[in-house]
Amino acid sequence: MKFVLENGYNNTGLNEVLAASGVPKGSFYYYFSSKENFGLELIEQFEQANKAMLKEYLQDQTFDPLSRLRRYFQSNIDFLVGLECRQGCLIGNLGQEMADQSETFRLRVQQVLKEWAASLAACLKEAQEVGQLAPHFETSQLGSFLLANWQGAILLMKVTKNSVPLDTFMFNTFKILLKSNI
Amino acid sequence: MKFVLENGYNNTGLNEVLAASGVPKGSFYYYFSSKENFGLELIEQFEQANKAMLKEYLQDQTFDPLSRLRRYFQSNIDFLVGLECRQGCLIGNLGQEMADQSETFRLRVQQVLKEWAASLAACLKEAQEVGQLAPHFETSQLGSFLLANWQGAILLMKVTKNSVPLDTFMFNTFKILLKSNI
Repeated sequence: MKFVLENGYNNTGLNEVLAASGVPKGSFYYYFSSKENFGLELIEQFEQANKAMLKEYLQDQTFDPLSRLRRYFQSNIDFLVGLECRQGCLIGNLGQEMADQSETFRLRVQQVLKEWAASLAACLKEAQEVGQLAPHFETSQLGSFLLANWQGAILLMKVTKNSVPLDTFMFNTFKILLKSNI
Repeated sequence: MKFVLENGYNNTGLNEVLAASGVPKGSFYYYFSSKENFGLELIEQFEQANKAMLKEYLQDQTFDPLSRLRRYFQSNIDFLVGLECRQGCLIGNLGQEMADQSETFRLRVQQVLKEWAASLAACLKEAQEVGQLAPHFETSQLGSFLLANWQGAILLMKVTKNSVPLDTFMFNTFKILLKSNI
């Protein structure tokens, strides 16, 4: 995962993965039929972890909907900053790298993004239902917008190697955009 | 440029670039001292074109500031859609791919993003001065936010292979965020 996140999928050689993990080549091909299968399993692992986190934060009834959303992103920010702003997001990275090269990867990344945006949108809809979010917002579209903005913020974090773009995302999202009336 | 945009920098071999462009290897090394130098020249070419476009659109006094900004992004959308939503943005792609691998590339991409955000911020400040943008916005930070969001929208466009993420960016930016009062 670390090699693919920092060096890209194409630029990661199986030999370096095997050497770093101390796994013999035969064992690799016992678990993975190909490098592509290995890449898709990384996406699967990311998706499971992200879904668990979305559930933990966005369905936590001890907080109001917008607080749940804020806590979800803040928890991710703490994680990313703990990695010294390296690596970024597997889905953003693989989407960027592979979308023009492999329909298999493109469609899988698209599916993850779609469900991810839907989870954010469901929480935004709850916020709207309890009057935390103004009625003019179309929450399904807004979920996709927040996810795109989040991916962009992570990209700028990776380039600047500091958390300012993530803080900018949080401020403009939670103090301005979602509080806004038009 | 096309190879690097679609396949990534590491995944682009000089031989395929030479074959596609019909240039002999000796001539390549006459112009470029190394593959890295070639990559940096691609960034230079992108930056010059983008600066020309920013100047053309954002300093066009026949439109009000927010219309200039909207026309700048819409013109880029037309270009990206014309490429069938492939390739994406060289700066986003190289930032994502190279930021953890090469300080030379990271710092160069960071510089391009910084000046790009500053151009957007200058136009937002003009909008604020003529009363088009509410005074609560901190335009410098807002310029960075819009650029991050734009990069995220291009990423989602590349993955979904349609313009919906770009249209979502335009709608939420120009019809909601920038029109908002808090």
